Amino acid sequence: MKEHRIRIEKPFELECGEILPELEIHYHYTGELNKNKSNVIWVCHALTANSDVEAWWPGMVGSGLAFDTDRYFILCANILGSCYGSTGPVSLNPHTGAKYGKEFPMVTVKDMVNAHQLLCDYLEIQQIQLITGGSLGGQQALEWAVVNPDLFAHLVPIATNAIASPWGIAFNESQRMAIQADPGFQAGQFSYPSAGLRAARSIALLSYRNAQTYNKTQAETSKDKLQDFKACSYQQYQGEKLDKRFDHFSYYTLTKALDSQNLGRGRKSLESALIQIEVKTMVIGISSDLLFPVHEQRFIAKHIPGASLIEIDSFYGHDGFLLEVDQLTKAITNFLN
Amino acid sequence: MKEHRIRIEKPFELECGEILPELEIHYHYTGELNKNKSNVIWVCHALTANSDVEAWWPGMVGSGLAFDTDRYFILCANILGSCYGSTGPVSLNPHTGAKYGKEFPMVTVKDMVNAHQLLCDYLEIQQIQLITGGSLGGQQALEWAVVNPDLFAHLVPIATNAIASPWGIAFNESQRMAIQADPGFQAGQFSYPSAGLRAARSIALLSYRNAQTYNKTQAETSKDKLQDFKACSYQQYQGEKLDKRFDHFSYYTLTKALDSQNLGRGRKSLESALIQIEVKTMVIGISSDLLFPVHEQRFIAKHIPGASLIEIDSFYGHDGFLLEVDQLTKAITNFLN
Repeated sequence: MKEHRIRIEKPFELECGEILPELEIHYHYTGELNKNKSNVIWVCHALTANSDVEAWWPGMVGSGLAFDTDRYFILCANILGSCYGSTGPVSLNPHTGAKYGKEFPMVTVKDMVNAHQLLCDYLEIQQIQLITGGSLGGQQALEWAVVNPDLFAHLVPIATNAIASPWGIAFNESQRMAIQADPGFQAGQFSYPSAGLRAARSIALLSYRNAQTYNKTQAETSKDKLQDFKACSYQQYQGEKLDKRFDHFSYYTLTKALDSQNLGRGRKSLESALIQIEVKTMVIGISSDLLFPVHEQRFIAKHIPGASLIEIDSFYGHDGFLLEVDQLTKAITNFLN
Repeated sequence: MKEHRIRIEKPFELECGEILPELEIHYHYTGELNKNKSNVIWVCHALTANSDVEAWWPGMVGSGLAFDTDRYFILCANILGSCYGSTGPVSLNPHTGAKYGKEFPMVTVKDMVNAHQLLCDYLEIQQIQLITGGSLGGQQALEWAVVNPDLFAHLVPIATNAIASPWGIAFNESQRMAIQADPGFQAGQFSYPSAGLRAARSIALLSYRNAQTYNKTQAETSKDKLQDFKACSYQQYQGEKLDKRFDHFSYYTLTKALDSQNLGRGRKSLESALIQIEVKTMVIGISSDLLFPVHEQRFIAKHIPGASLIEIDSFYGHDGFLLEVDQLTKAITNFLN
């Protein structure tokens, strides 16, 4: 995918009331934008991903694939608060000349969507054929479809919810508590290694998988061990891997954005917000998802007028949305045609 | 319950090969020990509990209750590695005159059972009517029954397993990673507050409950909040509560003991170890247990000769073993009579 970055030198007001003096939006794209700019597939990415969809969703973007580059122009923008190029805690605060770090304000899913809309306006895109995303990406897709339903021809929210659950919030709070235990985070430093971020990732992984996946993939081979089990090194390895590519302030910020999801906030109700989504919608859930259980997708599908629901059978829990490429491709291709 | 402490001034060899120069065992008891010392109910406690069963398992100990003080002598010993009176990281190392702290060696479920056996010998108990416990307590009960089946008339392991699961180990490793992120722990200090221990407890709670319990008990009442949700303050409150009564070195030590559970270690196989348990056994599982799923109790019941299995229907997940007192009482009373 090609990448580009725009800078919007205007104040950007956040839902929390704070104002970012300017905004950078980093995005990736591939395929050909048609003359009417009406063949766009806009992918919203999840927590620790970035705008390079091909990199983190292998098998989904390309000629003849779900996001078919022969027909569509595929676009993804890095989310506000991330550390992959759009404005976030690692950006320079123009007021101080230093990185925002711990001082970066709270951002919500609505703020992310407002930034996406600015990019969309900048690119003069009037019609998006498909808005989609999984997890936090699906939360953005839903929020955007409530705010601006006329922009979209098709909506596919995947393994996501209309309102953050206490269960998901408790998982995120545990992760933030681990990050807050880290002396570097406490001191406001961009530090590597961040033991807190590693622990946070380790916790998050538990919610992305489930007992079955762990018991199969991390099964112990030695029966004499007292400690240092496979599951231990796996958690440590995954923590280290994220720590190498992410930042603890961004992670902290984005988990709070996840928690902020509530399509009913500032509106009459959650249900009435979903009813506003007059877009052809297919909701996708993952049967074994522990973090965004299928009842949450059933709720969405029930309230969006005419929405269909697909429950993908997967062994991989929430991570199934990244891994079940064949099932997703079949469902999305059928839906778009 | 009354309490007592014994000191065994002999070296105690641990499964890991290290040697504790001496051992203290703190225990609680209630009811009357009969002349033959044959009316003992021995309760093994779980991770952060202590030997005062009445305090942490309300409704279970007393006249006419499951652990009937009219008929039985109820005894519980604090586990090795804990901070409630038996030898652990908060004890003085007689070799250095300082608390063990971070230097406390690794202990396993087998080590805990060896310490229980020493107390049992000291008290000259020849026959235990019932050995029981939930979670880490159930792991001890099982291990002890493999080592010394003749000692027991009845065995009731609850919400436990014969071998630690990769899933449970991954949960514990995440907790240890959070503890290791804490600067006080890193420096080897007994520090309060311990942000790492608080995060660890917050993680553990997720595994003790499940999505349903969180979504019901921590449901948000305000629809306008951006942050500071009920589920956040709940996790923080529970973390703080444990931090006030526990120690991070003990917690670290005991989670490793939990991981060490493997009845097959040093024996022919897991199944053959269970077959050795020639004790009248009733295995209890909790239907909604996320951490010790019922398939683990089914496995135990399948391999212990003649064992029966009760699956308690509970909303509370793993914590059901502490809360479903009526169902437990009915099952245990029927079983003993």
